[in-house]
Amino acid sequence: MLPLTTTRASATSLRHLVAHPLRRHASTSTSTPATAPLASFMSSTTVIERKGRIVILGSGWAGYNLARKIDKSFYDVTVVSPNSYFSFTPFLASTTTGTLEFRCATEPVRSIEGVEYAQARAESVDFANKTVTVAPASLSDHTKVQRDKSDATDVALLPEQKLSKNYDIPYDALVIATGCRSASFGTPGVAEHAMFLKDVRDARRIRLRLLQCLELASEPNITDDERRALLSFRVVGGGPTGVEFAAELCDFITEDVDRLYPRLRGLASITLYDVAPGILMSFDGELRHYAEKKFARDGVTVRGNSHILAAGPDWIELKKADGTVERVQYGMLVWSTGLSVNPFVNSLKGVSKDPHTHSIHVDPYLRVIDDQGKPMPHVFAVGDNSTPDSGQRLPATAQVASQMAHYMHKKFKRLSMGKAPESIGPFSWKNKGSMVFVGKEQALVDRSGSTVEGPKSKLSGFAAWFIWRSYYMTLSMSWRNQILVPMYWTLAYFFGRDVTRF
Amino acid sequence: MLPLTTTRASATSLRHLVAHPLRRHASTSTSTPATAPLASFMSSTTVIERKGRIVILGSGWAGYNLARKIDKSFYDVTVVSPNSYFSFTPFLASTTTGTLEFRCATEPVRSIEGVEYAQARAESVDFANKTVTVAPASLSDHTKVQRDKSDATDVALLPEQKLSKNYDIPYDALVIATGCRSASFGTPGVAEHAMFLKDVRDARRIRLRLLQCLELASEPNITDDERRALLSFRVVGGGPTGVEFAAELCDFITEDVDRLYPRLRGLASITLYDVAPGILMSFDGELRHYAEKKFARDGVTVRGNSHILAAGPDWIELKKADGTVERVQYGMLVWSTGLSVNPFVNSLKGVSKDPHTHSIHVDPYLRVIDDQGKPMPHVFAVGDNSTPDSGQRLPATAQVASQMAHYMHKKFKRLSMGKAPESIGPFSWKNKGSMVFVGKEQALVDRSGSTVEGPKSKLSGFAAWFIWRSYYMTLSMSWRNQILVPMYWTLAYFFGRDVTRF
Repeated sequence: MLPLTTTRASATSLRHLVAHPLRRHASTSTSTPATAPLASFMSSTTVIERKGRIVILGSGWAGYNLARKIDKSFYDVTVVSPNSYFSFTPFLASTTTGTLEFRCATEPVRSIEGVEYAQARAESVDFANKTVTVAPASLSDHTKVQRDKSDATDVALLPEQKLSKNYDIPYDALVIATGCRSASFGTPGVAEHAMFLKDVRDARRIRLRLLQCLELASEPNITDDERRALLSFRVVGGGPTGVEFAAELCDFITEDVDRLYPRLRGLASITLYDVAPGILMSFDGELRHYAEKKFARDGVTVRGNSHILAAGPDWIELKKADGTVERVQYGMLVWSTGLSVNPFVNSLKGVSKDPHTHSIHVDPYLRVIDDQGKPMPHVFAVGDNSTPDSGQRLPATAQVASQMAHYMHKKFKRLSMGKAPESIGPFSWKNKGSMVFVGKEQALVDRSGSTVEGPKSKLSGFAAWFIWRSYYMTLSMSWRNQILVPMYWTLAYFFGRDVTRF
Repeated sequence: MLPLTTTRASATSLRHLVAHPLRRHASTSTSTPATAPLASFMSSTTVIERKGRIVILGSGWAGYNLARKIDKSFYDVTVVSPNSYFSFTPFLASTTTGTLEFRCATEPVRSIEGVEYAQARAESVDFANKTVTVAPASLSDHTKVQRDKSDATDVALLPEQKLSKNYDIPYDALVIATGCRSASFGTPGVAEHAMFLKDVRDARRIRLRLLQCLELASEPNITDDERRALLSFRVVGGGPTGVEFAAELCDFITEDVDRLYPRLRGLASITLYDVAPGILMSFDGELRHYAEKKFARDGVTVRGNSHILAAGPDWIELKKADGTVERVQYGMLVWSTGLSVNPFVNSLKGVSKDPHTHSIHVDPYLRVIDDQGKPMPHVFAVGDNSTPDSGQRLPATAQVASQMAHYMHKKFKRLSMGKAPESIGPFSWKNKGSMVFVGKEQALVDRSGSTVEGPKSKLSGFAAWFIWRSYYMTLSMSWRNQILVPMYWTLAYFFGRDVTRF
């Protein structure tokens, strides 16, 4: 076994962080390790001999990336998130069909050396006393264990009130990166019946449902019309997420389902809806046209100008371009449009928020603006749950979140070097362009709006697909996934996708 | 993409098989493909131009192996099983800790070329009319989809009564291979609270619970004693399954948990219980001693002569060797002893059964004995759910099930060549010896009781472990898994195991 031990020192010193009344003896007996010259920079009144404590709320693109980058020899870092992992969103669509294994799209937070992790949800923040109150999430809904013969059960091993007791985590700097969740714009029935695609659990759910639809449609007691209804896959939202999912699904059906379920050949259909006239509206017109032509050729139906009015367990009602209302059946409905801030940000007091999105106002240095209109020096908001108070709205993308994480990392680094953090200047987003996979070894790469150096190129087809794969593969966080991802791509190419449902 | 098309011919002709009233037009319009000279060998009265129809109930070691081996150009093969996959049981313990990915221990039934699969449970057999009645299982409990905010939901897409309607499958030859399920010997509380390890879903459940215990124990509001209770892993059954699970768990704790959860170091414990005085009682004494010494050194406690009296959500009550009764706490209880035939075999009418195990009596040619004491020429029982009426009981192992599948394959082959199937002689089991993994790159190989050619060797330690891995790797069914398994072993070696819980 290679020596992969954790930096014990930082892990030990972090014990101070968490309010840990019953184990206080353990933490007080350990001496504070490593030099931390600027440990108390942020609390200018009290100078104590310990590292600066950074608490990050959230383990998404912003939170996870920041936790990875911060120099743990200078800071004690705690990540608070109900998810013990980061979801690598560009690969989620691939995992829904089995092109990639689910774990290829995740990175465990605990694998970041020197970072303390609390499986919990932030409840509230006491800005005056610099404390976050969190609610444990180890027993939360999504972790329930399924059993064969009963409903989801979850044996509480200790009196639940004990485990679900909230606790406090003190911070010197707080970074709010709780992101957004999928939103249904209040469309009735969507929250109950649609599938989303924000997290690896969503992807697993889609995969189970997809394979279930195939088995249901294979039963002999139903008509071909009923089979067609079961195999109607409807995707709402023509942005990159919806398009990539439709593309993966189309590949899965033509490359695997037709072979493994020969009886169902020709019965499946994929329809993509959007309120806009077409799909991928943020892309260059020429590329968009390419994608639409490709989908038309592959049999993926695109329905622009469509408003979904309501959803039931197996139908959606929609208003078409000509104003008529139509009700269509589905076997699986995937909702990939709309975002809203999560309940923690919604309930957060003492900060200024955007009246429309309810996201947190930040100044150009990503400092949270308090309800008096002043930036708080120790509290930051990054990623989808933040909005510059300048009014310039940034896209809610992984690219923006990652760049904000990188900016925060540089600020913290500057602090640890004894410099003023704001001396690096305000945050500015660099548009690196966008990419989307459109199926069958083809993709689009659009750098026409790019604000970084390099060619302002537009590319479609196989070469773009090659760039898509290469880029995301190298963006993978761990060596583990940098090895596994191309391995699974190769296996899917030679042996097809796995249809095991368990 | 490589050409991996199914033999369309056999898939089409199989449509005749399934009672498919609503699609009759589709099947009658296709001509029967391929020559099938001995198609009607088994129904000696009616001679019709079609292939012989073999229906296999079950997708375990016996059923899956038989379905794979049968020559599909001579037979139409249908597999009926609630599980759309085969569980490669030797790797299940490795998947509980993440040494291997779950899918490394599964093979999808639908990937067998030319085999028709019905996700259903056998309900009853009409031996006179050669028909099996099956109940669809596509909507069954274990396939329920979990959602974040609610209990397990499973949207019935069509009126449920329609999908759950039983249907009939006619056969020329029926092979009953439904196997056994885990049994608790009526010990109160075990069925509700214990984890089992027979299937990949069991393995997933164990992994989720194990990781949940680690997160629960990481919460700050509890005492170290409560942590020790949460991290008490108790395994009942000292056979190869229990021993391999304890070994994998011990490796996981020392190699990964101590590194990723430094705060929990020294708090976890593993205890293995058996009614026998020790573990691995079917192994040679010297090897057994080696395993016990190794477990003692690694801190895995072995408690022989222990009878479990009852189990609760976090405790078991047991009678010790000295007759005293003790109640101990656990965080996870894994029950790996005892088997019972499944409900279908229990309710099956018209066949002779073993009065103790309720398994089906077969003659030396594996033909099922009817309730008049006569072998049925077209009905066979293989694997754990069969018992020779001679009284000689065979071990309920993968080895026996595989050999029975191979024997049946040879019989069907002989039939297709125009020979009498019984001319190959009675089934006889060859003991090839046994192997067990005991942790930390060590295993036992015991061929001292072997009845096949080769050295009657006993081996323990690293060399035995090397043989263990090599043997099972080559035994893997698909190319896919023959590539993935060593890849995951290598990744676990270099980067440790993944602790993502979703």
